[in-house]
Amino acid sequence: MPIDPSAVGTPSGPTEGFWKSKDCLLYALGVGCGVDDLSFTTENSAGINQQVLPTFACVAAAPERIRSAGENGFSKVGTFNPAMLVHGEQGITLHQPLPTDAEFVSTGTITGVYDKGSGAVIASEGTTVDKATGAPIFSTRTALFIRGEGGFGGDRGPAAVKIDVDRPADHTVTYQTRIDQALLYRLNGDRNPLHSDPSFAKSGGFDRPILHGMCTFGFTGRALLRVLCENDPSRFVSMDARFSKPVLPGDALTISIWIEDGRALFRTERAPGEVVLDSGVCVYRAA
Amino acid sequence: MPIDPSAVGTPSGPTEGFWKSKDCLLYALGVGCGVDDLSFTTENSAGINQQVLPTFACVAAAPERIRSAGENGFSKVGTFNPAMLVHGEQGITLHQPLPTDAEFVSTGTITGVYDKGSGAVIASEGTTVDKATGAPIFSTRTALFIRGEGGFGGDRGPAAVKIDVDRPADHTVTYQTRIDQALLYRLNGDRNPLHSDPSFAKSGGFDRPILHGMCTFGFTGRALLRVLCENDPSRFVSMDARFSKPVLPGDALTISIWIEDGRALFRTERAPGEVVLDSGVCVYRAA
Repeated sequence: MPIDPSAVGTPSGPTEGFWKSKDCLLYALGVGCGVDDLSFTTENSAGINQQVLPTFACVAAAPERIRSAGENGFSKVGTFNPAMLVHGEQGITLHQPLPTDAEFVSTGTITGVYDKGSGAVIASEGTTVDKATGAPIFSTRTALFIRGEGGFGGDRGPAAVKIDVDRPADHTVTYQTRIDQALLYRLNGDRNPLHSDPSFAKSGGFDRPILHGMCTFGFTGRALLRVLCENDPSRFVSMDARFSKPVLPGDALTISIWIEDGRALFRTERAPGEVVLDSGVCVYRAA
Repeated sequence: MPIDPSAVGTPSGPTEGFWKSKDCLLYALGVGCGVDDLSFTTENSAGINQQVLPTFACVAAAPERIRSAGENGFSKVGTFNPAMLVHGEQGITLHQPLPTDAEFVSTGTITGVYDKGSGAVIASEGTTVDKATGAPIFSTRTALFIRGEGGFGGDRGPAAVKIDVDRPADHTVTYQTRIDQALLYRLNGDRNPLHSDPSFAKSGGFDRPILHGMCTFGFTGRALLRVLCENDPSRFVSMDARFSKPVLPGDALTISIWIEDGRALFRTERAPGEVVLDSGVCVYRAA
């Protein structure tokens, strides 16, 4: 069965799960926080309340923290080779600062099935609420690109945001990733051996295991939180970006940020001109 | 109530708990394993079975993995200021290679209450068995030193092993710890802010947070496993050592190993002559 555009509107969930303080600490270390980030890496430092990085939303519903999984809307999209699937775009919106512990319910919808010619794009959105109160905690937007599954005559879908600013970035931040970054990051739930097993990575056409795109997203989110929100998660509203190139563990990531019309545009490079995260838009609250 | 020597023989437990594969992966990363140690840091690399570092025994019964705690033999030792307590010695014996997942039962006994003059030493031993089969998995030996609680007229107890070998070490291994090593290591269960909170560390008389002694023990165990057992945990029998000085995150640890009479003597230094782990004895099986 090829990709089926009529899958649009198919719901996912409800999926119930939880996260705990330790999951948030481990996530923060996995995206490079350390001794200069004790509000994200410790829960018992004097005079410091534990906070949760906004991008933890991307891993909140890790398989090991799911108590009951609901419907999987992707089953209606058609069958395809999972090895052809790559993460295309990711977005998050925080409706409140993420709590350090939560019992949650997530629901989602397939919002678009697009035909890019060389492949298909499956877009989905999800919302996660507090199980007890129903209060929204965060929303996610995900676009998956399935290589080789285009040409079914569907709509091309929306174009990505172009960062077309004719000046140097207003802010740049460089973070060094470590050779073993992916080994730590994977403990947040994505155990795809593409990120850890050299022989698996070779069979996928890579010289060595590549970093999780979502880890790059997390490093980038740290830079945005620091530069735009003075590390205050309550000022962080949303972040969207497109994955454009793989990152290798050990790469230095340089995040360039332009303030435009009260929001920020951003991109992340692993070397000058080698953009790994593109079309970035971050919405934040002024102090 | 001062220290009470009649506490010797007091049992602890039975304490029931579990550990899972992820706990072992996190531990391995916490004591410095990385991309060259995929059998300890991954569970799904082609042709590699996950193994567990022998020193994981030291953190196996972390509080968060206890299902039911039994008697606490230490309550019979007397009351003392917990801030005066330091980890004096640690030993482990493996009765089988540690499984990646376990349901266990631990029991223990106070084996000695010694008077060192400047303080008291409380020695204890514990055994951990497989809950379903009763098969022994590992044993531990711990000596806690309580500063200021000596002089009660008790026995001085056994002297530590002296490493008195008149030749350079047969093997030396140096591992670099990281500035944020303790932030990762503490997720194995010991959340004492002495290892993470600068203000707490200062109040304890340290310039900055110190590394967990058990983290140094873990780095040292990795060196022994590599040099003596070719990284095969089934050849690792036991390891005992005495904590002699604090380590700061970021220190390079140099482990010196002498083969004597079919066993190994070892010590760990943070700088030449600054011994942090002393009186080390490791028993192992030849290939």
